[in-house]
Amino acid sequence: MISLKKNYLRQKVAELLIIRSSGHLCDTQRQYPKWELKNSELKRLLEEGVGGVILLGGSIHELQQRSKILSSWSAKPLLLCADIEEGLGQRFQGGTWFVPPLAVGQIYRKDPEKAILLAEKYGSSTGFQARICGLNWILAPVCDINSNPNNPVINVRAWGENHSTVSELTCAFNRGLASQGVLSCAKHFPGHGDTSVDSHLELPILEHDLNRLEEIEFSPFKTLVAAGADSVMSAHILLRKIDSRHPATLSRKVLTTLLREKIGFDGLLVTDALVMEAISKCYGVAESAVLAFEAGADLLMMPENPDEAINAICSALLSGRIPMKRLEEALVRRRKALAKIEAFNSTSLDQKSKVDSLDIERDADRALADELIRRSILVRKQLDLDAKNHAGINLLRVDSVLPCPFLTPLSPACCMPEAIGFRTILCHQLGISPWATDLNEPLALTRFGDGPFLLQLFCRGNPFRGDLNNQEPWLVVIQQLQKQNRLSGLVVYGSPYLWNELIQVLDPSIPSAYSPGQMPEAQNQVLSAFLATDKMKNVLQTQTLRDFTD
Amino acid sequence: MISLKKNYLRQKVAELLIIRSSGHLCDTQRQYPKWELKNSELKRLLEEGVGGVILLGGSIHELQQRSKILSSWSAKPLLLCADIEEGLGQRFQGGTWFVPPLAVGQIYRKDPEKAILLAEKYGSSTGFQARICGLNWILAPVCDINSNPNNPVINVRAWGENHSTVSELTCAFNRGLASQGVLSCAKHFPGHGDTSVDSHLELPILEHDLNRLEEIEFSPFKTLVAAGADSVMSAHILLRKIDSRHPATLSRKVLTTLLREKIGFDGLLVTDALVMEAISKCYGVAESAVLAFEAGADLLMMPENPDEAINAICSALLSGRIPMKRLEEALVRRRKALAKIEAFNSTSLDQKSKVDSLDIERDADRALADELIRRSILVRKQLDLDAKNHAGINLLRVDSVLPCPFLTPLSPACCMPEAIGFRTILCHQLGISPWATDLNEPLALTRFGDGPFLLQLFCRGNPFRGDLNNQEPWLVVIQQLQKQNRLSGLVVYGSPYLWNELIQVLDPSIPSAYSPGQMPEAQNQVLSAFLATDKMKNVLQTQTLRDFTD
Repeated sequence: MISLKKNYLRQKVAELLIIRSSGHLCDTQRQYPKWELKNSELKRLLEEGVGGVILLGGSIHELQQRSKILSSWSAKPLLLCADIEEGLGQRFQGGTWFVPPLAVGQIYRKDPEKAILLAEKYGSSTGFQARICGLNWILAPVCDINSNPNNPVINVRAWGENHSTVSELTCAFNRGLASQGVLSCAKHFPGHGDTSVDSHLELPILEHDLNRLEEIEFSPFKTLVAAGADSVMSAHILLRKIDSRHPATLSRKVLTTLLREKIGFDGLLVTDALVMEAISKCYGVAESAVLAFEAGADLLMMPENPDEAINAICSALLSGRIPMKRLEEALVRRRKALAKIEAFNSTSLDQKSKVDSLDIERDADRALADELIRRSILVRKQLDLDAKNHAGINLLRVDSVLPCPFLTPLSPACCMPEAIGFRTILCHQLGISPWATDLNEPLALTRFGDGPFLLQLFCRGNPFRGDLNNQEPWLVVIQQLQKQNRLSGLVVYGSPYLWNELIQVLDPSIPSAYSPGQMPEAQNQVLSAFLATDKMKNVLQTQTLRDFTD
Repeated sequence: MISLKKNYLRQKVAELLIIRSSGHLCDTQRQYPKWELKNSELKRLLEEGVGGVILLGGSIHELQQRSKILSSWSAKPLLLCADIEEGLGQRFQGGTWFVPPLAVGQIYRKDPEKAILLAEKYGSSTGFQARICGLNWILAPVCDINSNPNNPVINVRAWGENHSTVSELTCAFNRGLASQGVLSCAKHFPGHGDTSVDSHLELPILEHDLNRLEEIEFSPFKTLVAAGADSVMSAHILLRKIDSRHPATLSRKVLTTLLREKIGFDGLLVTDALVMEAISKCYGVAESAVLAFEAGADLLMMPENPDEAINAICSALLSGRIPMKRLEEALVRRRKALAKIEAFNSTSLDQKSKVDSLDIERDADRALADELIRRSILVRKQLDLDAKNHAGINLLRVDSVLPCPFLTPLSPACCMPEAIGFRTILCHQLGISPWATDLNEPLALTRFGDGPFLLQLFCRGNPFRGDLNNQEPWLVVIQQLQKQNRLSGLVVYGSPYLWNELIQVLDPSIPSAYSPGQMPEAQNQVLSAFLATDKMKNVLQTQTLRDFTD
């Protein structure tokens, strides 16, 4: 009888966990085998009652199958989520991939109404494709205000740099998601925008007091909560003046006193991934799960060992450390969220007919992605194709190369400059260093050979990479190449902060352009504009792309 | 009435074409959009009667869906083929990826019986996974004898360097395929093993006469034809002494006089891809299709413009240039081949039950892949982990980096040397050159920094890359690093020819190892042996793999 009760309790606690699965279907295909559970483990945990799965990797068609399989392993409806902030294509091959939200924030400056409309479409397109692939919960929008340009982990993921832009655009995005019957998640409470440390690596510490939070950080969360955010995700940051002991994710003061009581949020409260080092460095699996749950979180994202987390919470409930009421309220919130999805699905007619269609990306999605690129690229000065000999170096700088999802030898960033005589050289963290020891002439020119440089810098804040990007002296490189008359042009893809920094020193006579998006279509659009389209077309038509197999 | 007849003729001729499709499902996911038809085009051509599709790219689960969709667009059974010579995983992610056939040829030297058994399993494993994914025709085995170590395009794809090895092993592979009800293809008749030019780029010209062909090249084809090869693929090579005018693919003397009449082959005869430059440089789409068909080919692989090829053959038939008998015999052979598959499927019970299983790779497939690696790696001398400071350079040399299917930052070739202090530097065609101008000291050491080098060279003959590999002076690099006492070790993955060349100058006291396979498990096995496993295990266990998302 007691073991029956215990078993029942274990099942109920298990509902609150979100475990990690690859979107690929075979165990051998997992990209992060340390974090992505094997099929046998996923099956066991879902059979034992685990209530949610976070997915990453694979194609949209694999994701469709994966969602069905995960659901078939569970007796009850699941929360199936993904960290999709920039369209389904950001995480799942074949989905539409949008420019980062900050690009929409830039459009907002010039044309707020247009930007709001685009943000809503951004949400509905993401929601549509997610639902067609079996997901019912999108871990977006990012509600952090990127007030710190050096933020290594939020950066272009934010919708803006001030609270009104972020509030307006995240609400619009949220309306779009809601129109597709997919749950949203406002993150990362109480605001991750003013950090300069990557919480994937260590715990950021902030000095903000309640007044400051009320004035700035809370604003988008309040607006979105009022507008009906389905869930909120906690941040792994320590607000010394609010709770000097525990980071927000584990802090009762932050989660319950501020978010629940002060802001009045009554939806699902989920932790950020508990495996992140900001948490896992200081707390064990069991303790972090119990603390987060005790503090007010309803759902626990990616505890390193799911069984250990479930057992620890069960013990804390049985011992009376945590009142049963906490479990009940969390389960009720989860049920309500699932009921909302259910209600949508039962009235929506288009779902079934679309599920097996080949092209999940509709014309409207493609048009939106293209429009967002078109409105966000910036050509300061075109390259004159006739002006000089372009037998130079197409220097591509990327954050990572194994893999580099937006680049193949056939990508526009390679092909188009090659078509007019530039030879591509790819610089990345794993390659031979492009750097010399002379701080005033940092680019080791002898490693590149003769000719002028077309610099194409793909650079954005990326998790796990700390502030590596900022350490590279591209500003000085611009000066070095200008002095030597060897700079043909500059194109920045991604960070507006890097772009703004570099054009401070860039001679206005040097051709330059910027694109917030890094995907092939962004390369195509920005280079077509930069390289004077018509002439380029002729060049590309005469070029033979001869490879046809691996 | 006439147009009805013409339409009927067009449909019948269309049956003989093999068109190209991506294994991915969306048009936007195509890797080679110039060669892979759009869904709308595929659908139209299959509805109009095209009888075969060659597939490349995507995962095994996408392939399963793709095969079903293609079949649904056709009123009649299709030939669905792929260029799979090294296990399904070579072309489709998630399938089993085997060491190249030449590695089995190396095992044959020591233990012929074992090698024959392994080759048969290699075939049955490939056949099983292909069938489960909807393919019914495998474009293997390669029957070419790699008698020329500088062959840029056959090389490790061959099963051996002499006719008896190739005959024995290809027959064994063929038995394996046949046991799974999948059609085979002996290629590339009359023998592509002694060429030093890549036929993807230009037409190789050979001086062999009939005596030489009879003595060497024909042997595996004869054996396989006698054993029941389902199809033979022609080579794009010019045998000046046999037919000074046309390459084998378009030569009546080669295809009809030699293969049909002399060797007595009565199965399907298919051309190699007609888009390859060896053909397309000299002949138009219409002319190459007509010539190949006239010469005796039954099926036409990847004409650049399928409609043009169909129309040209129709015209040649209607004008009497080609007798209708040619069409009839080709159609009969195609029907017979399909009937063979049908007969197998109707008696096989396991197919239906397996089609939707997650893990298409069975334990036996995995065990075979591991055994092939284990039997083919060679450790000449282990690296002593205690001997010296390993704060050096892990120089990885790869043929291509965008993408590099066997390498991620988590791959053993990166991780394992990093765990003992080596820092990875990746060298590839698109990167900053590692080469200095001094021919005696070709490696530009200043570009790498201090410390000894662990050289890991991933190198094998690759289509489209000409003889680039051979131009890199690794032999001199070995001498250069030895002289300076900066060579910690050498591991070669892929080409046995490069390995054999390098160990001629390698001091036997320097640790070194070789693996014909380049895949992660081959890296793991060869490095575990090379780095003395037990100590390595401890090192790897203490290492944190902290990345968990993109």
